Parts: sequence; C-alpha cells; structure tokens
Amino acid sequence: MPLSSQPAILIIGGAEDKVHGREILQTFWSRSGGTDAIIGIIPSASREPLLIGERYQTIFGDMGVKELKVLDIRDRSQGDDSGYREFVEQCTGIFMTGGDQLRLCGLLADTPLMDRIRQRVHNGEISLAGTSAGAAVMGHHMIAGGSSGEWPNRALVDMAVGLGIVPEIVVDQHFHNRNRMARLLSAISTHPELLGLGIDEDTCAMFERDGSVKVIGQGTVSFVDARDMSYTNAAMVVANAPLSLHNLRLNILVHGEVYHQVKQRAFPRVI
Amino acid sequence: MPLSSQPAILIIGGAEDKVHGREILQTFWSRSGGTDAIIGIIPSASREPLLIGERYQTIFGDMGVKELKVLDIRDRSQGDDSGYREFVEQCTGIFMTGGDQLRLCGLLADTPLMDRIRQRVHNGEISLAGTSAGAAVMGHHMIAGGSSGEWPNRALVDMAVGLGIVPEIVVDQHFHNRNRMARLLSAISTHPELLGLGIDEDTCAMFERDGSVKVIGQGTVSFVDARDMSYTNAAMVVANAPLSLHNLRLNILVHGEVYHQVKQRAFPRVI
Repeated sequence: MPLSSQPAILIIGGAEDKVHGREILQTFWSRSGGTDAIIGIIPSASREPLLIGERYQTIFGDMGVKELKVLDIRDRSQGDDSGYREFVEQCTGIFMTGGDQLRLCGLLADTPLMDRIRQRVHNGEISLAGTSAGAAVMGHHMIAGGSSGEWPNRALVDMAVGLGIVPEIVVDQHFHNRNRMARLLSAISTHPELLGLGIDEDTCAMFERDGSVKVIGQGTVSFVDARDMSYTNAAMVVANAPLSLHNLRLNILVHGEVYHQVKQRAFPRVI
Repeated sequence: MPLSSQPAILIIGGAEDKVHGREILQTFWSRSGGTDAIIGIIPSASREPLLIGERYQTIFGDMGVKELKVLDIRDRSQGDDSGYREFVEQCTGIFMTGGDQLRLCGLLADTPLMDRIRQRVHNGEISLAGTSAGAAVMGHHMIAGGSSGEWPNRALVDMAVGLGIVPEIVVDQHFHNRNRMARLLSAISTHPELLGLGIDEDTCAMFERDGSVKVIGQGTVSFVDARDMSYTNAAMVVANAPLSLHNLRLNILVHGEVYHQVKQRAFPRVI
C-alpha cells in the first residue's frame, strides 16, 4: 500500500524510534513528499542544536529527500532571516525536535518565520511534526512544566503560551511513561474548552485536515474531553487544593485507531 | 451539626490522618455509634499486626467507645474462633488496616467470620472501613499489585479475588500519590462492568445504603466508568500490548462531593 503524501500535523510523545522501523519518522517523511521532500529541521528547543539537528538530518537523509536544512535558530532575530524565510516558502515539511518548550517558544513565537510556517500548515501546504518539547508547543495553551505523584491541583502544572498550531488542544507528552495524567487533568481544569492530549513515548497523534486524528506507534494517546464537564471547583480553590472535575470523557487509543474531533468519538482500527 | 450514625462502608486510600483532625477515622467512629461503638480492628493485612492493631486501638480509644477489640487473625482457623464470632455479633464497626491485600484475603476470604461480617454490613447493621490493603479487598475483583510509569497494558496489573464487600467496584488506593491511573485503567479493560475507584491518600469513598458515595478527606476519588465503553482491544492483544479503551467516563471528586452509583453521575458539594 503506498504511503499517503497528504500534509498532516504529527504530534509525537518523545523518544520516537530513530533506529529500527522508524514508523513515525517515516510517516512524517512520507507526508512531506517522500523522496521529493524538502524538509527543515528546527532544533531550537535543544541546548545541543547542532548534535540533534545532525541526528535527524542523517535519519531523513537516509530515507532519501530532495533537500534537507537545519534551521539552527538561536536568536529571535534569526526568525526574520531571509535565507530561512526563503527556505520555508519552498519546503514541504518542518520537524521540531525535543528540548525545552519554553526555549522553543521564546525563540520562535510571533516571528515572521513561525507565522509563515503556521500559515502554510493551516493552508494544508506542508507537514509539521514536533516531538517532546516540539509536541508541547502545538497548542495555544502549553504545559511548560510540572510534576507527578500528586492528586490534580493547579500548582501541579505550569502553563504558558504555545505556538498555536492546533489552538484547540493542550498537549502532554511522555504521558503514561512519566505518569502525567494528573498534570494534564490539572491543565484541563482551567481550560475545559480544550481537548487534552496525553501522548506516550514513541507514539504520535496525526492530525488530518478532515478533523480526524490517527494514532501511530507503540503506545497510547489519551484524549481527555472536558467539553461536557458538569462541574469543577477549580475557580474557587487555592492553587494546591485538590481539584474536582465532573463528567469528563476519556478515550485511550492505540496504533491505527482514529479519534474524530468534530464527532468527539473514537473509532477502532479498520482491518 | 451532629455526626450521622448510619452504618456505612468507608474505603480509605491509605495514609489517613491519625494525628490531627482524624476526620476520616472520626467519621468511621461516628458511623459505628460514637461513644456507644463496639469496634473490631482486623490488622491481618500487616506483618506487624500487634503494633498496627495497638495504634488504631489507641486512636479509637481516645475518641471514646464502649468496647474495642483487636481481632488478631494470623491463621485461617481463627476465622472460626468462637470468641471472635461472638464479638462480631455484638460489634457495630469493623476496621481493616493496611498491609498486603493478598495476605488479608488469604486469611479471611470464605471464613465464617468474614462471611458474617459481610452479611451484617449488607444488612446495614454495622459499619466497615478498610484502609490501603483494607480498601483494596472491598471489591470482588481486586488489584493485588502492579506497577506505574507505563501505558495501560494487562501486564501492568495483577488481579486476584477480593472479599466482595462491594462486588461491583474495583479499588485502587494511594491513587494519584503513586500514579496508578494506568494500572486502574488496565484492570478496567478486562472488567468494564465494574466501576473503578481510584482513592488518594488520606481520602475516603463512603458508600451509603442509598447508593450514594460521599468523598471525605484531603485528596480526590476518581470514578472510572467503563459501562458505556464502545470498544477495547483488551481481548485481542498480548498481555504487554498497549490497551485502547474508548468512551470512558471519568469523574474526579473532592471532599463533600457525592457520586450516585445508580444515576452514574457526580454532584457538587451542597453549601
């Protein structure tokens, strides 16, 4: 079966397979045009951008592409770099690596470069993937940090503003691997209008243009839906008080399964 | 406001306050009749039954009771002990301590003593409380052990048969404190007919005879309801494969809030 080359948004929970099947990275490559792909790698979340940029360059280079460039942005002024801006007009896919999501947003948010990338993604002209920190930045509201091993409480999660690629979601990554359910629930309590996505390691939530989200990879994606929440105490209690959240819907999906954003429901894998 | 003395079942997530407000233990004491209470303490889950039995004896003794006895059962034959059986006919409350739930069930399940306790609880004649391991045994299906830091998978949880006090639930304790959401979800995947209860430390789910469950204490109780689950892959995959669970309902409640088992919904605290 030929791989689809439709542009998509790939939100990856970190630690994706870079050695063996490389299924998620291969899917991004395919969705960026395969051997015709012109891929830009943004390693700016990392404090070792050269190293991590080269790593992905080797991976996508091995798959075979038309062009590959690391957009090594270490200063906000580079977000207006004419060479980079020209490349972004030509490219078919952008990949954002892991690191620190605050660093990534600090360097890229509201730059002409990022605005143009977002626009081209929204026009369905290019694919965009982000892993770990690169996944966290996808929503308008972003989980910047936090903790685990506590009941849901607002102090458990640090919120910040993300890149707003998919504004209506809030993403948490390394999800079950790092026991982050309580942290995502804490984020949702003050943003019940958002769809919470908890994405496990080596797992990807792939947003298609028709509103469907397909799960790819080894683990699960948890969709926490508070849009029918009947009650929360969040607005009435101090930051470290336990949070109540009544009537949430929880869908946990594995490889091949699909969640429909509009229909607000999950579908089994079609065999 | 006078405390109610209606018998109830108190399922406590472990590490309940034994020093300051003692709110949960005080509620159990009140529900057992207060100063008229005749309370039996079953420390059999623990490998230090003398020590832990004495500790609760001191606590309830300080509150003031009519009679207090430690049922120090270390051998299944004691489950037929005539002195203990006579006491169970007279008592107004039974408290099961923490320790190892498999040990507790091994010593007590299907003994005449336990059968009579269950019967008197079901008749609404006495209160029963269990904390930690004493909470885990409350369902017919019991979480005996497991792990965290993984996506839901059947190998993440060890199931066994509990004491069946509230047969239609499966309990996990120290819940958010020990990051046990994935473990409870794994248990639910093969028992979607059960209501999953994840109870935090120093927190209690109190089952009343009218089908309502009131939350008491410092943390949260998570009610995971898979009764409308539209799909799971649980029956079709190997034990360590990631589990999908579609269309779960999740209610997270704090102190003073009530969950109705029959109505399957949560209610805010009435001020």
